[in-house]
Amino acid sequence: METALRPTPPAPVAAPKVALVGAGPGDPALLTLKARALIEAADVVIHDRLVSDGVLALARAAATVLAVGKTPGGPSWRQADINALMVAHALTGARVVRLKSGDPGVFGRLDEEMDALDAAEIAFEIVPGVTAAAAAAASIRVSLTRRGRNKALRILTGHDVDGFAEHDWRGLAAPDAVAALYMGLKAARFVQGRLMLHGADPATPVTVVENAARADEKVIAARLDRLPEALAVAGVRGPAILFIGLKPRGALAALDDAAPSTLSLALASGGWA
Amino acid sequence: METALRPTPPAPVAAPKVALVGAGPGDPALLTLKARALIEAADVVIHDRLVSDGVLALARAAATVLAVGKTPGGPSWRQADINALMVAHALTGARVVRLKSGDPGVFGRLDEEMDALDAAEIAFEIVPGVTAAAAAAASIRVSLTRRGRNKALRILTGHDVDGFAEHDWRGLAAPDAVAALYMGLKAARFVQGRLMLHGADPATPVTVVENAARADEKVIAARLDRLPEALAVAGVRGPAILFIGLKPRGALAALDDAAPSTLSLALASGGWA
Repeated sequence: METALRPTPPAPVAAPKVALVGAGPGDPALLTLKARALIEAADVVIHDRLVSDGVLALARAAATVLAVGKTPGGPSWRQADINALMVAHALTGARVVRLKSGDPGVFGRLDEEMDALDAAEIAFEIVPGVTAAAAAAASIRVSLTRRGRNKALRILTGHDVDGFAEHDWRGLAAPDAVAALYMGLKAARFVQGRLMLHGADPATPVTVVENAARADEKVIAARLDRLPEALAVAGVRGPAILFIGLKPRGALAALDDAAPSTLSLALASGGWA
Repeated sequence: METALRPTPPAPVAAPKVALVGAGPGDPALLTLKARALIEAADVVIHDRLVSDGVLALARAAATVLAVGKTPGGPSWRQADINALMVAHALTGARVVRLKSGDPGVFGRLDEEMDALDAAEIAFEIVPGVTAAAAAAASIRVSLTRRGRNKALRILTGHDVDGFAEHDWRGLAAPDAVAALYMGLKAARFVQGRLMLHGADPATPVTVVENAARADEKVIAARLDRLPEALAVAGVRGPAILFIGLKPRGALAALDDAAPSTLSLALASGGWA
């Protein structure tokens, strides 16, 4: 496959095409081979705020790299403008990579961009990526599903168009429920309240992984009833995955002590050191 | 990172170590860079049945490659024997890669292997991968979550230790529910029955992606009430992801016609062809 890629900018392609690419959780080593090849060959890279500098560094020096982040509470690109930007570049014949953190199909507003590309009759392909929950689970050394514990996993968003997202709280409050909440940091107190209202055990383990698979990763393990205090003490500012029903393996097996636990797991990375 | 890897077999490492690595959905281009580097450097690769030949071809010629598959209805490795094999090789000082299809944390029995490694005091790291649902969704060109459609995704198994797995059928039967069922092919009729018993719309779209991200990928789009017939006509034998509440983008937007639809989506792969 890589033999098809050229190190120098190619002539404009006959038919415009966009690659909608998952950038993974942040560590460039967790990019897929296909994502790397596409980034390295791109003329234009249009990326979300959470795509890491290490990933963007793979773009050619001559490539146009455009940030179209949505900063919570700050200036943001409107989705319609992102769509228009992507279409405009593709129509010039440029090789456009639309780069989204994690997997593009998980809370990535992918359909809206595909609709815009279809409307402009621009071909596209989707390249899946490692989603943040998978990386965060690997960091705390647990599996997302486990025989005898949970045979289902829920992937949830903390926010939707109406603010904090409502979910099936009764189901999530069940003893065996396991969920990964994306964009859940600001919603943490809301989620805590909803779960406890629906009968969740106050000792339910909740683990927050901030900046999963990045150099500044931080893990906060808490009981549900102490979650907001634990987050305040740790000073978590996100982005973060909030796991309901999972706790880090090993050292923090017991969360019954009074103080919430914060740790930075220094995990082996990058080979067989 | 790759500079730390050597092309020739290294001297035994001082401390035994195992990498528990996600091999992604099958296409070697969907391996992570880290997974590829670890496979290329491994002395011993112990892999599940679903890991593709293309991925295994990355191992060194001198590497020992061991299949420990669990064939449905056929001979299978017991988990305890897999654990023992992994431990025994690691204790020789070999660089051991335990390779699991998709993401190792999703229905991979990862905890049981971590327990065995901890018991033997062998260090390990976990390398997340692209899970099959993400690859299958990319193949049918839909996102797993969508504003205004579903703000939650459920990852489920079709089988557990007791046979067909029971789930929150009432929740799954709701109009906005979206789920990805792993190992769900044999359970398809059971799932159909449970969902309809709990009031699911008979026209709920169900899409089965067999061999996602492999050359022989097949997509079957059906209504819930015609699912078993559609699978029988298509001759699906798995492995497959069964999506509840998702249909392929585009051509198959309408599933109201009498016949179930089968298609092989010929998707652009490997660069900017």
